[in-house]
Order: sequence, then structure tokens, then C-alpha cells
Amino acid sequence: MNSFIIHGDICYSADQNTLITKENGYLVCEDGISLGVFDSIPEEYGGLPLHDYSGMLVMPGMVDLHIHAPQYAYRGLGMDRELLDWLNTYAFPEESKYGDLAYADRAYTIFANAVKNSATTRLVIFGTLHREATELLMDKLEKIGVVSYVGKVNMDRNSPDTLREASAQASITDTERFLKETQHKYKNTYPIITPRFTPSCSDELMAGLGELSKEYHVPVQSHLSENPGEVEWVRELCPWAKNYGEAYSRFGLFGKPEKTVMAHCVYSDDDEIAKMKENGVFIAHCPASNTNVASGIAPVRKYLDRDMKLGLGSDVAGGHSESMFTAMVDALQVSRLYWRHVDQSCKPLNVAEVFYLATKGGGEFFGKVGSFEKGYELDAVVLDDSLLPHPQPLTLQERLERSVYLAGDVKALKAKYCRGRIIKS
Amino acid sequence: MNSFIIHGDICYSADQNTLITKENGYLVCEDGISLGVFDSIPEEYGGLPLHDYSGMLVMPGMVDLHIHAPQYAYRGLGMDRELLDWLNTYAFPEESKYGDLAYADRAYTIFANAVKNSATTRLVIFGTLHREATELLMDKLEKIGVVSYVGKVNMDRNSPDTLREASAQASITDTERFLKETQHKYKNTYPIITPRFTPSCSDELMAGLGELSKEYHVPVQSHLSENPGEVEWVRELCPWAKNYGEAYSRFGLFGKPEKTVMAHCVYSDDDEIAKMKENGVFIAHCPASNTNVASGIAPVRKYLDRDMKLGLGSDVAGGHSESMFTAMVDALQVSRLYWRHVDQSCKPLNVAEVFYLATKGGGEFFGKVGSFEKGYELDAVVLDDSLLPHPQPLTLQERLERSVYLAGDVKALKAKYCRGRIIKS
Repeated sequence: MNSFIIHGDICYSADQNTLITKENGYLVCEDGISLGVFDSIPEEYGGLPLHDYSGMLVMPGMVDLHIHAPQYAYRGLGMDRELLDWLNTYAFPEESKYGDLAYADRAYTIFANAVKNSATTRLVIFGTLHREATELLMDKLEKIGVVSYVGKVNMDRNSPDTLREASAQASITDTERFLKETQHKYKNTYPIITPRFTPSCSDELMAGLGELSKEYHVPVQSHLSENPGEVEWVRELCPWAKNYGEAYSRFGLFGKPEKTVMAHCVYSDDDEIAKMKENGVFIAHCPASNTNVASGIAPVRKYLDRDMKLGLGSDVAGGHSESMFTAMVDALQVSRLYWRHVDQSCKPLNVAEVFYLATKGGGEFFGKVGSFEKGYELDAVVLDDSLLPHPQPLTLQERLERSVYLAGDVKALKAKYCRGRIIKS
Repeated sequence: MNSFIIHGDICYSADQNTLITKENGYLVCEDGISLGVFDSIPEEYGGLPLHDYSGMLVMPGMVDLHIHAPQYAYRGLGMDRELLDWLNTYAFPEESKYGDLAYADRAYTIFANAVKNSATTRLVIFGTLHREATELLMDKLEKIGVVSYVGKVNMDRNSPDTLREASAQASITDTERFLKETQHKYKNTYPIITPRFTPSCSDELMAGLGELSKEYHVPVQSHLSENPGEVEWVRELCPWAKNYGEAYSRFGLFGKPEKTVMAHCVYSDDDEIAKMKENGVFIAHCPASNTNVASGIAPVRKYLDRDMKLGLGSDVAGGHSESMFTAMVDALQVSRLYWRHVDQSCKPLNVAEVFYLATKGGGEFFGKVGSFEKGYELDAVVLDDSLLPHPQPLTLQERLERSVYLAGDVKALKAKYCRGRIIKS
């Protein structure tokens, strides 16, 4: 059923420096797993059905390592203040509404539809603290066929009355119920432990979440060192921690025992970076969000040079677009401004690097995902780049490059595969 | 013929701080000129045809103060180097092709079609040094109905053999012929004097162009203080000039005697800024381009505070998108990074300000253009923002704000008017 051959102009990353392109290539998928890309159809697979996308671009499905589903409703609004003020003014009031399941249903229908129509096949998602609304979100995501981790958010302090759990224990109990209800319910949708960030979670709550992560073998997501004011606040809240990262690692929420993704890492110090490297913590680089709420530019070149685990996040609604093409362009652009205005020892990123981050880099959080090398789960998107006319001949690599810049518009998206199943065509 | 009433949810700028919104408003157009926006149809105009866009956003047509038509072919390619290297590697080889009229025809057809489908109604455009290809471009622009200034570029030094005019005198002679052939040929398309930039133009050429501008009363466009390497080079080329601006003003190419638009102004010094203010030189702020070729961020807050003449440019193909919605978002974003990483005395821009820049700010280069106030030429675009679904009620101002962020995609564009004529519907 999930065995077939895709024919087209194929692009994928082998590593962060190596972009592989094959015009008129054949990508063989057996039981949802890639067997690799070939110049012609290998004899032994001659009988498989051929999905012919001649002349179109075929690339791995995009991976969004950080997005807030309930914030999708107000993307593109309220970009006029810094993080903490922005949370109180926009994010928290909107998220409070998700106690109302009718509202959540309406909003998450719009979100799921946007995900379906995007080039994204894998996502790591924040819900709200509302368990029922978050499970509703998971139902909807399961239906559209993407693979995702979805978190019921934990918050027991420094939040408005309308968006704060009754106690650390109440939050832990509700989260355990969430894990039990969702851990084996879906084929493609999984729970993830989601302390919002240190300012919203007491030490008692963090400790309990660490225990749950360990007991249920569930991964972790949160925010780290996003904004100077936030970093300073964490220093006051956790005087015992030598940096923000330790406010997670102390509780077993920093890559060990379970894999963890931390969004932003704009202001991580050397020790925090070393700990992330040691623990294999994934960094979700969210350039649009870091720009929109004026946090600053993350030093991504340093993370690439240290061979850290790294991908991209749209971070809707700090970011205003769910498009990972937009995220790639944003990552390229801010890296140039970082070079110009912050540190000229940090060379700007190039297209091969951001393409790697949006596919194989972030994909690693999901296992063997984000490439077409043999053994990788078969996620793919097909772009009809003939919708972007040009007067001169272009190489395949040039077509990919301009599609990164110009194909944020989903009109070009012709088909999307996830785990060897067509989920949009 | 050009008299009618537009009904819809209307937004326009009175000044850089004042965004006016009127839900269910009536915009009256008489002979292509706005008579203003009303709560209901004024009795004396009851007989005019009604163009009903109920529930849609109606706003002034966008103004692009700086775009290179021949570079549209390679937008989204070659963003991996700084300005001077980028010109030699990408821009000059591509522009060399426009000596071939068949190639120019193919490329400019694609460009004109993109302009037609955009929300832009006014443009200030660089062609190439080729007179015939530039006139072909003007023919195409006239047909699609936008209003534009188009320049045959002048270059007589520091350029490859394939893209350099034979001598200053040859360039001046050819430019005079260009002016004679085009100045009264079109209704909506006008020539503009276009020295590429100081490094490409000898003093003799600049002097001749200044004379032509004065004699034929033709405005001027060029580039100014874009990149540190370029500014340094101009200092070497024109040791007699106290700054880059004087390398134009000495020759009458800096706002006097004819109006002038200078792209970029990222590194203008105080004296240059004062001279621009004194002479009423327009600044085309091109945030995407300044980011893409790693020039840096222009201090736009300073220009706004000094009440200088200022608009936005897409600067394709330094910028990769012709969308002025994208340009507005880029302007917002880089202003936040400027605040964060360069100068915290420069407050980030807000939506009302960038909307003003993209409409009335840049529109002033064309006269009374870019607003719906009484007496303004009637350029308008209609956006169907119901294509951007949301679960909560939004005010008209919020709908405009999110459309700025999200409507770069032209699918939302329902109709476009220029000088009181529908040019796309």
C-alpha cells in the first residue's frame, strides 16, 4: 500500500553542508520507508506504481519544531511589544478562550486546515493548559495525516487567573491523565511534556513534570533564553540556577532522560550551550518570532559550527506565518544582519544550510526523518515551480534556491506525503 | 467614465501617525480624483455607479519607489554575497542580456505580468542601459495601466565590457534620445534620469545628466550610501565630495532642480541627511534588499522623526519579492532588530507608519497620490481578507494589520484601480 516510486526533480540534504539534487530522479518508497534516489527505476522495483511529477521539485516534507496552535488565531496581530508584555497583552487572553470547547473547535479547525495546506509534515506543537481542547486539537491533527507531538501546557504561577492551573499538583495530575489518554490513542499524534517556561512553572511543578517524562518516556518542549528581560526574570526566580538551562536540567527536563526541544536560545551563555550539546537538546530556531517581538537574533552559526541538534520553528504567533519556506528565508536574512550588526565572525547561513535545518535537522527529533536517504521515513512535498516563470534556463539547484525564497505561497504545492501516505494532492 | 463610488471597509493614511478606517464607507471618485470617504452616499453623487465590495478591505494602491525590472528574472537567486560582489556576479551579467530584444521581451512580459497581479499601482523603475529594451518595457507597463517612471540606466565606468556605454558623451546622447522618444509618448509612463550609482558614472557623465534633467524637467533616481564598501569606494572616486550625496548634488542630481529619489540611505551621515531634507530628496527604504545583500539596516526612525520624504522600495532583485505587503513587514521587522541590536533610541516602526510609507509617503513622489483624502488621484486596491479566516471578531484596524502581515499572497487581491480606472478585477 505504501510502496511506490516518485519521479521528479529531487532535492534533499545529506548533512548541513551537502545538498543533493537529481534531475529526473526516481525515489523508491517501500512500506513508507525510502530506499533511496536512483537515476532510473531499479529492476526489482519495476512493478511498483509510479507517481509522476516530471518537471516538478520533490523535496522532504518540512519540519516545524515550534508552533503554538492556539495563537494561530491572532497571527499578524499585536507585534508592537516585547515578549513578556506581548504574552500578557495578546497570548494569555487568547489562550484563555480555549476553556470553551466550541471556540477551540472553531479555532483549531482553521489551524488544522492551514497545516494541511502547508508544506509541513512534522510539527512540535504547544496547545493550551486545557486538556480537553488539546485532545480535540490532537484529533484534528490525526485526521489530516501529519505527524506531530502536541503538548498540554503547564502553568501554575505568574499568569492571569484565567490561565493558571489551581496548583502544581493539580497540573501534574491533569497532565498524567493527558498522557494516559493520548499516549497510545493515535497513529501519528503523540503527547509531549510542555512546561510553558520557567516563569510560569513552580519548582514543584517542574519536578513533577520531570518525573512524568521519565515514567512515561515522553519527550519535552519548552522555551529557553529568548529575551533579555525573561532571562533576567528567571535569574530572580531561580537564584540557585547558574543559568536558565539549569532551571530545566535540574528537573530532568533538558534532553535527559528524554529528548527535549527548546525554542529560541537567543541569549544562551557558553555553559548553557555546552550543556545542550552534552545532552543532545534540540534547538528550535525561530527567526520571525525573535524579530517580531524584538527579542534579537540567535547566534545560529555558532550552533551549526558546534554540530548541535538544530531545526527551525515558525513559532506562530510570535512568527506570523506557518510557512517553513518563510522560516528558511527569515533564517537566512537574520543571519546576514547578525553578521553585519552583531558579530562579523559569524558567517551568514546559506540556502543548503537552512534547507537542511527545515528538513533533516529538525527531522531528527522524529527519528530518521527529513531526508530521502535509504531508511528514512518517506515524507515528501512536490512543488510545481513552473508557477514561478523565468526567462533564462536554471539548474535544479537554482530552482530549489528560488523556490525557498518564492514558494512560501502554497499555490505551488502539488502534493504532500507523510510516512509514505499521500495526505494532500 | 472615471466617476463612481466604491463601497467597502476603507483604510488610508492622513499622515504618518494617523491611520483612518471607516467600516462600510463610501469612497467617491469623480474624473479619477477622490472626493473623500463618506458614511453614506452624498445626495449629489447618488447617480454614480456603485462598485460594491462590502466586507472587503479597500486601501490606496501601493507605491514601489525602487525596483529593477531586468533583475526580476533572478529574484530569489544569488543572495550569498555583498553588494559590489553581488553586482558583478549576478546583476551585471543578467542585465547584459537586455541588448537582445527577444530576451528582453520574454523577461519584461514576466515582469509586467507580476506588476499587474500585485497590489502596486505606482513604481519608480530601473531598466538597463539599453534604450530599446527600456522603451519596450515602457510599452508593456503602459498597457497594464500602472503609473510609472522608468529609467534607461547610465554606466560609463567600472562595469564589464558587456554593460558599459562607449563614453560619457555616447551615454548622454543616447539618454537625450530616450527622453525625446518617451517624454510625451505615454499617458501613464514617464522617463526618469537614472545614473546607476557614482561608481558606474564618470563626473562628465553626471554633469551631462544634470543638464538633461534641468533642460527636459525630468526627475532623477539613483542609489545612495547602501553599503560600507560602496561608500568607501565613492570616497576614493570623488575625493572632492564631502560625502556620497555631494557626488550627486554637485551635478544637480539631488532633489534640485528636479525631484529625486535615492534608494537605501543606510549609511548617510548627518550632513547628507541634512542636505536630503533641505532639497526634499525622497528616500526609498528597501529593507529586504538591505538584508539580503547584508548591507545593514537603515535608520528609518530618524528619517521619520525629521519628517523627511520617505517611502518603501521592493528593490527586486536585491529584494526577492515585488510585494509591497512584504516590504511593509520587512520594514517593521528590521526596525525592531535595529532597536535591539543597533540603537535603542530608535523606536521600532508600527503598522500605521509602514502603511503610510507604502502609500502616501511614497505616493508624494507622484503628486497627490497614496491617500483617499479629497483631491488625491484615485488609486485603490481591494482585498478579500475573508480568505484569511479567524475564529474571533476583529476590528477593521486589526483586519488591516493582519492583512499587512498575511496578504502578501496576491490571491486576496480582488480589484485594482489606478487613476480612477479598473486595471485588474
